[in-house]
Amino acid sequence: MLQRYFPILEWGRTYNRGVLSSDLMAAVIVTIMLIPQSLAYAMLAGLPPVVGLYASIMPLVLYAVFGTSRTLAVGPVAVISLMTASAVGTVAEAGSAAYLEAAVTLAALSGVMLAVMGLLRLGFLANLLSHPVISGFITASGILIATSQLKHILGIRGEGETWPEMLHGLAGSLGAINPATVAIGVPALAFLFWVRKGLKPALQALGMSPRAADMSAKAGPVVAVALTILAVVGFDLGNKGVAVVGAVPQGLPPFSLPSTDLGLIQQLWVPALLISIIGFVESVSVAQTLAAKRRQRISPDQELIGLGAANIGSALSGGYPVTGGFARSVVNFDAGAQTPAAGAFTAVGIALASLYLTPLLFHLPVATLAATIIVAVLSLVDFKTPRLLWAYSKADFSAHAATIIVTLVAGVELGVIAGVVVGLLLYLWRASRPHAAIVGRVPGTQHFRNIERHKVITLPHLLNLRIDESLTYLNARWLEEYVLELVAERPELRHVVLMFSAVNMVDASGLESLEAINHRLGDAGVGLHLSEVKGPVMDRLQRSHLLDELNGRVFLSQEQAFAELAEDTGALPSAADPYEARGAI
Amino acid sequence: MLQRYFPILEWGRTYNRGVLSSDLMAAVIVTIMLIPQSLAYAMLAGLPPVVGLYASIMPLVLYAVFGTSRTLAVGPVAVISLMTASAVGTVAEAGSAAYLEAAVTLAALSGVMLAVMGLLRLGFLANLLSHPVISGFITASGILIATSQLKHILGIRGEGETWPEMLHGLAGSLGAINPATVAIGVPALAFLFWVRKGLKPALQALGMSPRAADMSAKAGPVVAVALTILAVVGFDLGNKGVAVVGAVPQGLPPFSLPSTDLGLIQQLWVPALLISIIGFVESVSVAQTLAAKRRQRISPDQELIGLGAANIGSALSGGYPVTGGFARSVVNFDAGAQTPAAGAFTAVGIALASLYLTPLLFHLPVATLAATIIVAVLSLVDFKTPRLLWAYSKADFSAHAATIIVTLVAGVELGVIAGVVVGLLLYLWRASRPHAAIVGRVPGTQHFRNIERHKVITLPHLLNLRIDESLTYLNARWLEEYVLELVAERPELRHVVLMFSAVNMVDASGLESLEAINHRLGDAGVGLHLSEVKGPVMDRLQRSHLLDELNGRVFLSQEQAFAELAEDTGALPSAADPYEARGAI
Repeated sequence: MLQRYFPILEWGRTYNRGVLSSDLMAAVIVTIMLIPQSLAYAMLAGLPPVVGLYASIMPLVLYAVFGTSRTLAVGPVAVISLMTASAVGTVAEAGSAAYLEAAVTLAALSGVMLAVMGLLRLGFLANLLSHPVISGFITASGILIATSQLKHILGIRGEGETWPEMLHGLAGSLGAINPATVAIGVPALAFLFWVRKGLKPALQALGMSPRAADMSAKAGPVVAVALTILAVVGFDLGNKGVAVVGAVPQGLPPFSLPSTDLGLIQQLWVPALLISIIGFVESVSVAQTLAAKRRQRISPDQELIGLGAANIGSALSGGYPVTGGFARSVVNFDAGAQTPAAGAFTAVGIALASLYLTPLLFHLPVATLAATIIVAVLSLVDFKTPRLLWAYSKADFSAHAATIIVTLVAGVELGVIAGVVVGLLLYLWRASRPHAAIVGRVPGTQHFRNIERHKVITLPHLLNLRIDESLTYLNARWLEEYVLELVAERPELRHVVLMFSAVNMVDASGLESLEAINHRLGDAGVGLHLSEVKGPVMDRLQRSHLLDELNGRVFLSQEQAFAELAEDTGALPSAADPYEARGAI
Repeated sequence: MLQRYFPILEWGRTYNRGVLSSDLMAAVIVTIMLIPQSLAYAMLAGLPPVVGLYASIMPLVLYAVFGTSRTLAVGPVAVISLMTASAVGTVAEAGSAAYLEAAVTLAALSGVMLAVMGLLRLGFLANLLSHPVISGFITASGILIATSQLKHILGIRGEGETWPEMLHGLAGSLGAINPATVAIGVPALAFLFWVRKGLKPALQALGMSPRAADMSAKAGPVVAVALTILAVVGFDLGNKGVAVVGAVPQGLPPFSLPSTDLGLIQQLWVPALLISIIGFVESVSVAQTLAAKRRQRISPDQELIGLGAANIGSALSGGYPVTGGFARSVVNFDAGAQTPAAGAFTAVGIALASLYLTPLLFHLPVATLAATIIVAVLSLVDFKTPRLLWAYSKADFSAHAATIIVTLVAGVELGVIAGVVVGLLLYLWRASRPHAAIVGRVPGTQHFRNIERHKVITLPHLLNLRIDESLTYLNARWLEEYVLELVAERPELRHVVLMFSAVNMVDASGLESLEAINHRLGDAGVGLHLSEVKGPVMDRLQRSHLLDELNGRVFLSQEQAFAELAEDTGALPSAADPYEARGAI
């Protein structure tokens, strides 16, 4: 029980020297990768860069205690940073103390929500985000983020939350481009793109092993950071209009408390919920992918608790919302991390950086961070998925397209909501029209098949319907309409058999529909029979009045129903006497 | 095509003298029943009583043109009147011109929404209201309405939208009870209860036929109206504190236009949507029940158009939202109405009443109308359903109870919303954990059955899973977790066969899960096979990459899969060579 909520107790017991050295190695590599990324994502969230470092310390330690993935690396990620900027931007001025407090509060709210969802085992809520919706959201977020960073590369001002606003803002200030910033930003961007695609092959050509080349390529952003700092210092670009990070406070994360202002909480709870769900979905997908590669398991409900603890930790140490990131987790995995202790060691690395390295960041150009972000998020933009979805399913394509369009035009929150709503509506529409088939007997066998696909025997007074779906409130109305319409079309009908072989559940609405069908068929002098009812469904039906009042019989097999009812072509006894009609008493 | 949108063209062509006399007879009875009810429900909605008459004229004529039910009687109903009061009460002062204008606007909005939903064939949205939610909502509304009318019976003031507020308000003014009002109200209430239960048997005992006794009993409220008017006039109760209806304008409904104030529309669109959906569900249930008794059919999508036209008509003639009522439709049906023309004749009757009878209503006590409402709505309160639901399904019971509690405590709008949300959450929770079974071969047969229920043959290196549900985004995550967990537990496993006999659809998320499972099993050296894939599912899968990349084969039958894979206990070819592994090329 204790181990369920504290997975550290499980892997901690078998921890040894070999595992330690693997974890330490992975931690060093992830730390080097994480420093520029953390600074950049904090900037994307509209926060001082150092907040990104703060958000990469306590969360990693807490996830190591509560998380179930051996290799997930938590911290600031691009999409959540964008959502943070969008949520906090509506309640406070960027750069103000209130802005930082709101970001901390958002992390606290999200952490509490995640932990409560985990304790209540509500992980299934993440199902509301279908793959097409998530992929549309990520693509649109990538486009939004990349566009939002262009202003830093060009050294101009740009405003706007939505894509049209951003494009308009950029177009309006193109005259004010700062040449010195462009001279830093564009080469940085080109270098980082090359690092991403070309560095690994180049290093391999120089004789490095593929794995070493891969790991070295991950340090590319650090090289870009170092080179552009040197350029700023060397050419005194700070006085030529190149924006730099400036003074970064040196030291460990401060202790911070979220706001208890109810008005603020009321404004932030919806974004916090969306951030929690998006973060959880992103994180759990990564964790599952990596776990499966080593035939390990993760527990989604405990992952909620782990991410909740990480976010609460972030809030208490001056950070902002975090989740498990894809890129860093893959690096952690590839670098050989064996346990969550690797995350804790990474936290130590980042803590050392925030203690000793921050003075070096004074001259770091903002354009370099923007270039880091652009290169990272453009890999999220995916033009293949819409094509595949269009070919596979127009409904899924619609949900995908709606999510992209609404996210670009109306922002991240409405984008997610629109995706969920469109997905649900399409699902409900399909669920309200389940598959059912009129079946007949395949000659010379005991099998029953769809009359539209097979040559089968049917009888005019006997209708056999196979219901290929559980009967729930979403399709209860359909069942009534479908059965009654078939009956209304067939005046010679005497018996209807509902074949329940694929009915796994009948909820109260389904039951009420069956009762209504039973009464209406009774009024019309038609018998209603059931066949092949599964055990759990039958157990439940026996707790209702349906079987007592059934204007017909329950048959163990469809074959038996067909054989016995084939002979009865006469009128039924009156509906007022259901017992006699079903031959039960 | 024209007939689809104008059902009158169908039944109108065969209209004849016999049908006419049946329809006229039914119209007279319904008119007599409708006059006091219309006045009372308008009062419940916080509107002048005459608005109830207005809402019972044009809507009936328009429904006769556009509606598909032969016997549905539309007009003001209790629950919609309560919802109108709740919605309009938040935007205007009761009794003001703005209040009336808001009610007219609400009818117009609801009418347009219903008509648009009908044209877009969105009737399936009504499925969101499950039977337990509707029945809980109706019960709670009945309790709210009855409680709200008690003040009129006692002659006191009472405020409040929610049940606790109402009870508190009543308790606070018990000292101010008006004896003269109680002397009218309590006997009227007692009389109407007796009319409902005791009059029909009494009339039958006097030798009347059951049908005539039944119809006469429906005129009970008219008798109560007449007697209490006489009492007010005879004992001059108007000067003893008994509230009376007072001057009612004489004449046909005025032409009216809804407000075009965008602010008002913004405040009213959510209530209008809820009123539309609740009204549609109530109406279509009644229409279906009555149609089935005569083996007739209604078209739910055209019903939306019919109700939309009725509400637009109501808005244009000074009325408020209307729908098909249960009690009056049953009376119409029992009185022998054959076509919607009966409704049009009823409209003529009500129009005559509003032209000539309104002066007689001056002395009608408000207490009589309140008694009419209380007796009508208490029959809506249903204490049997919660017991049946508790026995049948705890999940459905929860949705029912949540709807009742939220409606009583937080009002009708939040009540409906809570019911829909709880119902959806329970559904999603269940949908995220579909039924699946590990199956094995029944000895000596070609059948495969659940290993937990049957003695079957299984093999340690071969896992056969029957998936009893379509694969959609709601359960895609479950499928991945379920399959990977089973595989992680079985190190000796070489092959997994997913038996698709009950899979009717695979959406893009389901496809992505299958692809993920395929890759992960490939990484783990386990083959993934499919069996008994249905035609439509296979057509769709062939438009994806799954079958090309499948780390195994597709078998026509489970039997064939079992026979062929039983022999292969060795390791699979590497996942890098899927073509060889599946033996396809």
